[in-house]
Amino acid sequence: MRWLKFTAAGTTSWGLVEGDTVTTVNGDPFGEWSKTSKTHALKDVKIELPLIPRTFYCVGLNYLKHLKEAADKAGTVPNVPDRPEIGYRAQNALIAHDENVVIPASATEKIHYEGELVVVIGKTAKHLTEANAMDCVFGYTIGNDVSERSWQKADRGLWRAKNADTFKPMGPWIETNVDLDSMETAIRVNGKETGRFHTNEMIFGIVPFLVELTKYFTLSPGDVIWMGTDGASPDLKDGDVVEIDITGIGTLRNRFVREKV
Amino acid sequence: MRWLKFTAAGTTSWGLVEGDTVTTVNGDPFGEWSKTSKTHALKDVKIELPLIPRTFYCVGLNYLKHLKEAADKAGTVPNVPDRPEIGYRAQNALIAHDENVVIPASATEKIHYEGELVVVIGKTAKHLTEANAMDCVFGYTIGNDVSERSWQKADRGLWRAKNADTFKPMGPWIETNVDLDSMETAIRVNGKETGRFHTNEMIFGIVPFLVELTKYFTLSPGDVIWMGTDGASPDLKDGDVVEIDITGIGTLRNRFVREKV
Repeated sequence: MRWLKFTAAGTTSWGLVEGDTVTTVNGDPFGEWSKTSKTHALKDVKIELPLIPRTFYCVGLNYLKHLKEAADKAGTVPNVPDRPEIGYRAQNALIAHDENVVIPASATEKIHYEGELVVVIGKTAKHLTEANAMDCVFGYTIGNDVSERSWQKADRGLWRAKNADTFKPMGPWIETNVDLDSMETAIRVNGKETGRFHTNEMIFGIVPFLVELTKYFTLSPGDVIWMGTDGASPDLKDGDVVEIDITGIGTLRNRFVREKV
Repeated sequence: MRWLKFTAAGTTSWGLVEGDTVTTVNGDPFGEWSKTSKTHALKDVKIELPLIPRTFYCVGLNYLKHLKEAADKAGTVPNVPDRPEIGYRAQNALIAHDENVVIPASATEKIHYEGELVVVIGKTAKHLTEANAMDCVFGYTIGNDVSERSWQKADRGLWRAKNADTFKPMGPWIETNVDLDSMETAIRVNGKETGRFHTNEMIFGIVPFLVELTKYFTLSPGDVIWMGTDGASPDLKDGDVVEIDITGIGTLRNRFVREKV
């Protein structure tokens, strides 16, 4: 199933997408819900941010090429993580599919995309095991972990570098049925492919992360875990359109515009 | 005004505290509200977590003694921050006044408190100036930024060290009228004072933080900013009760218990 949060005729609700049609749902996917008879053409609705997570988890270094490129830039040897560790992002930075990433006026030209698989949690969960970890996963969406690389070097805790307003596009919807091992992530800038990788070729996969995190944390319905990215991005300019495509989910598209002062 | 989130007779609502009495309020302090005629004795209600912030901001090093003690332990020279920078904490870790901090079974004995002033945001705000910054502040509460120091050295992004479930007690209520410059923070372990400092003697105060943050972030009603701590904590043991007292706000009290395996 493909769950879309959308607005039509001034009303925001959840819906189910089949082909080019959205069927409005009463309620929400994490609680009680029922399909209505009301439908819209997908092209006629405003796609909204699927949700604001209670806790917004994000994996830093989880793919080998990205790790090597980060180390090369820093002039160090790649240091492959020996255990799954997690970070946080800020809810203020989230925007929906087709909304603009606004590059702050004081940012350098080192604005990069990071195309990421996003795991959406469906159930309260703690102390998960390898056997039952995937039971808490509701579905998957796409994230763009937009980063300002000069701030990333200078900031404590990546506060501006990763979390400035509009730096976290997420969407367009949540897909509940995917085949993780066959998925590819492809990134395009202004229609031209600039990156491609096997989505599930992570240093630590979803199960090890869920097991390790829930030793310490209680996951809640609507929490998200951004799983990291592979490869590197070109510098993005005012007007560039970035599309992140993940097999079986869809395409997250956002235009980058520079803040006018 | 002193805003309390509480449960009485199975119902959770906001209330206003005067002396030892809570008056139930319809609605909430960030929107429409009205006082009712219903009152309870404060001692008869369950004090709840005042709120779950949309974004949970927390200042790391913001007092000189704490900075020096951290540097001494690391065998380095104190490096005083030259600008206000912010970090994040995880919503999963929040608990209310009088709820137990559960020390994970795998934690070392290096469990420390950090008594902090918490700024509660009342309005949507961006690009604040020195002149208008304080207008977005709704009130103040107390936070205990519980930390596992061996994890703090080992973890990327302090993920377990600061954010394990129950590591972020906050409360007991939100006080809207305080005199920042006359406030002291005092910490007691099992009734014995173990730390005291002038609450507002920060390296960067509330106004510089609000101005700097809102260059990049939109603050939302109910967001919180934990302002950092001074001094150092003894190692806390199973059964210890920590009280953090801030002049004009009140006392946040929590028992520390070790997880049974």
